[in-house]
Amino acid sequence: MRDYYNKQLSELEKMMCNMGQMIETAIEDAMTALLEKDQEKAKEIIQNDEKVDHQQKKIEDLCMQLLLSQQPVATDLRQISSAIKMVTDMERIGDHAADISEITLQLTQSGYPHDLTEVKKMAKETINMLKDSLDAYIEKNAQKAVKVIHQDDVVDDYFSRIKKEIIRQINESSEGGEQEADLLMIIKYLERIGDHATNIAEWVLFYITGEHPDVSQL
Amino acid sequence: MRDYYNKQLSELEKMMCNMGQMIETAIEDAMTALLEKDQEKAKEIIQNDEKVDHQQKKIEDLCMQLLLSQQPVATDLRQISSAIKMVTDMERIGDHAADISEITLQLTQSGYPHDLTEVKKMAKETINMLKDSLDAYIEKNAQKAVKVIHQDDVVDDYFSRIKKEIIRQINESSEGGEQEADLLMIIKYLERIGDHATNIAEWVLFYITGEHPDVSQL
Repeated sequence: MRDYYNKQLSELEKMMCNMGQMIETAIEDAMTALLEKDQEKAKEIIQNDEKVDHQQKKIEDLCMQLLLSQQPVATDLRQISSAIKMVTDMERIGDHAADISEITLQLTQSGYPHDLTEVKKMAKETINMLKDSLDAYIEKNAQKAVKVIHQDDVVDDYFSRIKKEIIRQINESSEGGEQEADLLMIIKYLERIGDHATNIAEWVLFYITGEHPDVSQL
Repeated sequence: MRDYYNKQLSELEKMMCNMGQMIETAIEDAMTALLEKDQEKAKEIIQNDEKVDHQQKKIEDLCMQLLLSQQPVATDLRQISSAIKMVTDMERIGDHAADISEITLQLTQSGYPHDLTEVKKMAKETINMLKDSLDAYIEKNAQKAVKVIHQDDVVDDYFSRIKKEIIRQINESSEGGEQEADLLMIIKYLERIGDHATNIAEWVLFYITGEHPDVSQL
């Protein structure tokens, strides 16, 4: 019985890693599709979002089954309850990869903003945050989780800076500034992905330490 | 056995209505919080989003249970499969109500854009679309569902028009245009809610007719 239970817990671990891999790929591909004006890839990402939703549901079902049948305590209980919370943030990251791809499809029709250099840098930071938060989970690495939480300030700074720059470009634009406005949505989605990665890192800390981190003390 | 099955199906109907009510209230409250600069209400909406997520899960579980234990056919199968699809869109509408409230919290700190009249009108059209799509589901009313699908053009027109107007305001703004840029996100979320209401209406048509509507022929 205990063997079966442990097998289920490591199955949960595997499913979480798998979902992590799915959303990491989704957001990386969403940025590639944007930067390379790749309509086919953008459509693929939008379609694939259903798979992420499905994986979330599978994980939640396994967690519920474990909670009800095994009544776990201590670390096991924390592993399961943090997984239940983490998948909500992971699913929304998948949504935002699809949201970015929707805008990519629009931009390929309406024309592209001139310069995506800063957006590319912001995306790199955001994707690193996400990777680190997932690694922190896999490695049970509290230090890495804390790093992610701090890293959110960097992504927020990028957001404020690029937002100001885009507003400046809208002011100077002779073509109406519509593409620049679309870019504003993209950086908003990236900023939200940073927020969700931060939430994941906070759940990892809860999993490891048993306490909800006081972010101001980190 | 059949009695129990019918009871489960009407339970599903009730749960769907309940979730519909939740998201309708969420988006209405999100707009009230925005227009009345009500921080407390905005925070409440963000917190309540978890209840919507929970309701989605409960509905999906019931659907799965019905599919596996009853192997339904024809209308019953369509009722269940359309419910599984509809809740994804309904959940995202809940997310967007929370997203709008996040921006409301920012705006109450940073200062408000001057004029929200057009945004208020756009929100009214969007909320009407959502209400009609949910009514179409409850009443099994194909005509109402078709009306919703057409209505999406009105919301899209609002989006394009207000987007242009906001860009114009950013151009003229002497205070940096940051609040106006935040408003751009809000109308984007409203436009996405319109898309999700359209998806719901399309699933209602599938439920009633057994066919996926060819939107261009409606």
